[in-house]
Amino acid sequence: MSNPIITLTTDYGTSDHVVGAMKGVILKINPEATLVDINHGVVPYDVLDGALAIGAAYRYFPPRTIHLVVVDPGVGTPRRPILVSGDLHFFVAPDNGVLSLVYEKESSVSVRHVTSEHYFLNPVSHTFHGRDVFAPVAGWLSKTWQTPSFGEEISDYVRFSLPKPKPAGAAVKGVVLRVDRFGNLMTNFAPEDLPPEVRTGGKFTLRVGNREVRQLLQNYAQGNSAEPFAILGSSGFLEISVNRGDAARALEVQRGAEVTIEAA
Amino acid sequence: MSNPIITLTTDYGTSDHVVGAMKGVILKINPEATLVDINHGVVPYDVLDGALAIGAAYRYFPPRTIHLVVVDPGVGTPRRPILVSGDLHFFVAPDNGVLSLVYEKESSVSVRHVTSEHYFLNPVSHTFHGRDVFAPVAGWLSKTWQTPSFGEEISDYVRFSLPKPKPAGAAVKGVVLRVDRFGNLMTNFAPEDLPPEVRTGGKFTLRVGNREVRQLLQNYAQGNSAEPFAILGSSGFLEISVNRGDAARALEVQRGAEVTIEAA
Amino acid sequence: MSNPIITLTTDYGTSDHVVGAMKGVILKINPEATLVDINHGVVPYDVLDGALAIGAAYRYFPPRTIHLVVVDPGVGTPRRPILVSGDLHFFVAPDNGVLSLVYEKESSVSVRHVTSEHYFLNPVSHTFHGRDVFAPVAGWLSKTWQTPSFGEEISDYVRFSLPKPKPAGAAVKGVVLRVDRFGNLMTNFAPEDLPPEVRTGGKFTLRVGNREVRQLLQNYAQGNSAEPFAILGSSGFLEISVNRGDAARALEVQRGAEVTIEAA
Repeated sequence: MSNPIITLTTDYGTSDHVVGAMKGVILKINPEATLVDINHGVVPYDVLDGALAIGAAYRYFPPRTIHLVVVDPGVGTPRRPILVSGDLHFFVAPDNGVLSLVYEKESSVSVRHVTSEHYFLNPVSHTFHGRDVFAPVAGWLSKTWQTPSFGEEISDYVRFSLPKPKPAGAAVKGVVLRVDRFGNLMTNFAPEDLPPEVRTGGKFTLRVGNREVRQLLQNYAQGNSAEPFAILGSSGFLEISVNRGDAARALEVQRGAEVTIEAA
Repeated sequence: MSNPIITLTTDYGTSDHVVGAMKGVILKINPEATLVDINHGVVPYDVLDGALAIGAAYRYFPPRTIHLVVVDPGVGTPRRPILVSGDLHFFVAPDNGVLSLVYEKESSVSVRHVTSEHYFLNPVSHTFHGRDVFAPVAGWLSKTWQTPSFGEEISDYVRFSLPKPKPAGAAVKGVVLRVDRFGNLMTNFAPEDLPPEVRTGGKFTLRVGNREVRQLLQNYAQGNSAEPFAILGSSGFLEISVNRGDAARALEVQRGAEVTIEAA
Repeated sequence: MSNPIITLTTDYGTSDHVVGAMKGVILKINPEATLVDINHGVVPYDVLDGALAIGAAYRYFPPRTIHLVVVDPGVGTPRRPILVSGDLHFFVAPDNGVLSLVYEKESSVSVRHVTSEHYFLNPVSHTFHGRDVFAPVAGWLSKTWQTPSFGEEISDYVRFSLPKPKPAGAAVKGVVLRVDRFGNLMTNFAPEDLPPEVRTGGKFTLRVGNREVRQLLQNYAQGNSAEPFAILGSSGFLEISVNRGDAARALEVQRGAEVTIEAA
């Protein structure tokens, strides 16, 4: 059997000891664990951004991977720590909706409220449950695989829906969910959210910031560096890009900006 | 037996090949080593910031972990490379005080001046001992565990004390040691450094920047987003925070800022 | 036998799920692989910067290491994916010159055009071949080691030469190739590119930005914090530095700036 894999997704950044301390806690419990960083650059306190990160990555990992997801603005309050068993993967997180995209993608999930405090570090701080609660639960799970021993199943776990594009007159109105390192603007338009004429290749006008975009391209290199274009991104959402350029900067647009699409 | 664990703490950043080259050197010597990043975002040249990072993380790792700590403004000068055996862990670092918090926390340490140059890469550069000296020493140690073979024990190793809060009239005066990714201000006030009335729950005025802070809370979520508050952080020091906000930005305060606390 | 080592060098950054998804793909194919990040901070789209990163790091890794290098502005176009066998290492990358420094340093290479699409994820996206093409090729190679099964050898692979310093009147003119985290300016002057008088210790004037540099030092600590100096860096190129300071900021100089050196 291969070593168990534990991934980490947090908003802790990588400029202090915090993520390192979590890894130490896991390895002290299970030195055989293979640790893989997914993303420590989640926007601070931003549960939606964390949900997008884990939602886009987890299915690429092997069966039985344990995904530790800590975006936890409610640390120290009674919000519940949870342990989720999906079709093939496990998840350890605070119960604040950060696993919403996992719930959406999995055919069924079992969600447990982790109440077995003997798994936690002692004492548990009020401000760092990544180290004191979530990391040890992931570490022990990777040794025992006994999900029932962590706590009872619950059905009232917190989940939210990704904001969906909505009709607005003749157009459909959506939003920029995320800006990547290249300045590509990831919107919340899945192909099925586009106006029917656009889906079948018709002309369109996409408005974002003060700019209009009229091209839908297949790959970045088809674009030129002056003209922004739309493209179906690798996460399944429409993106707005500039070839070898930074669309966010060129369009002066940030996360949360409104995007409208109208058939021409 | 599990694979040996080697952690890395440096001020090298992660935007070039430098940390990767160090990891290659270790794995060429010992391909069985498990490498774990603690923090490559130590403030450049800042031995105190490096000391805080390793001091806050090392005890969470399993016994026999080797911690490689390279914050090395004196690279190429005669400052000594050292190998330290603590109660349960090993450390490889330049002798410039970057292990001061380790010396403070361990019940006893044995510090060796690493002089066995046959362990180093050949030639040794004048500017990158992380790759040429410290990484190979950690790699060989993880194979042989023979600390005496690296050099003689010394007692005049460099150590400094963390700046301690001091009385200033009716108040106690300390400093902001570090700002984390969320903008929380970590001070050098341990609970025992607070005025006695404050320790037992009395009212107080904390001054930092041009602001006054009067609340001591148990967790971040008790605060509101307009009002900064004090909180006992997970490293054991008093922090100044804003719930879901950035205290450093809100208070226009940086690392090194003066903090005074006075019982009301 | 040790676990196979796969390194990753990309311009993807570490603030989203992208690198994590690549690692998942590799581990799903070969859970025994040891993954090591070299650098995800390559300047976006910058093939030369990627070439410098992998060129400076790969030889420090053990024989049979597989280096995955994805700086891929042509993703989705017919640019070829390649698999390169060097003297002791393997490389998987787009055929855009990002391995040019590898070709320069290896005594011989065999370059294959990867055409065996059954190794790729299905479907292959138009925008993320790091996940869909390059990661699975590296994963399968680490299991099978059968390079011929990936595609035919080619000889017309893309390579470029590092820009070399050139005579300019009495001086030699080069360029700043890279700025590191400390603000050190790495130039393209190898020792043999310096004017002969300078090589043998003679006085010189180096001009960069609006400043003149006249000292060549052995280590950083010999410098003072006000005066920039030249130093032979650990990658074999001349660097311009300020002791415990940031030369790029002090000299207001960035990557691409002209550097001239003249014997005095």
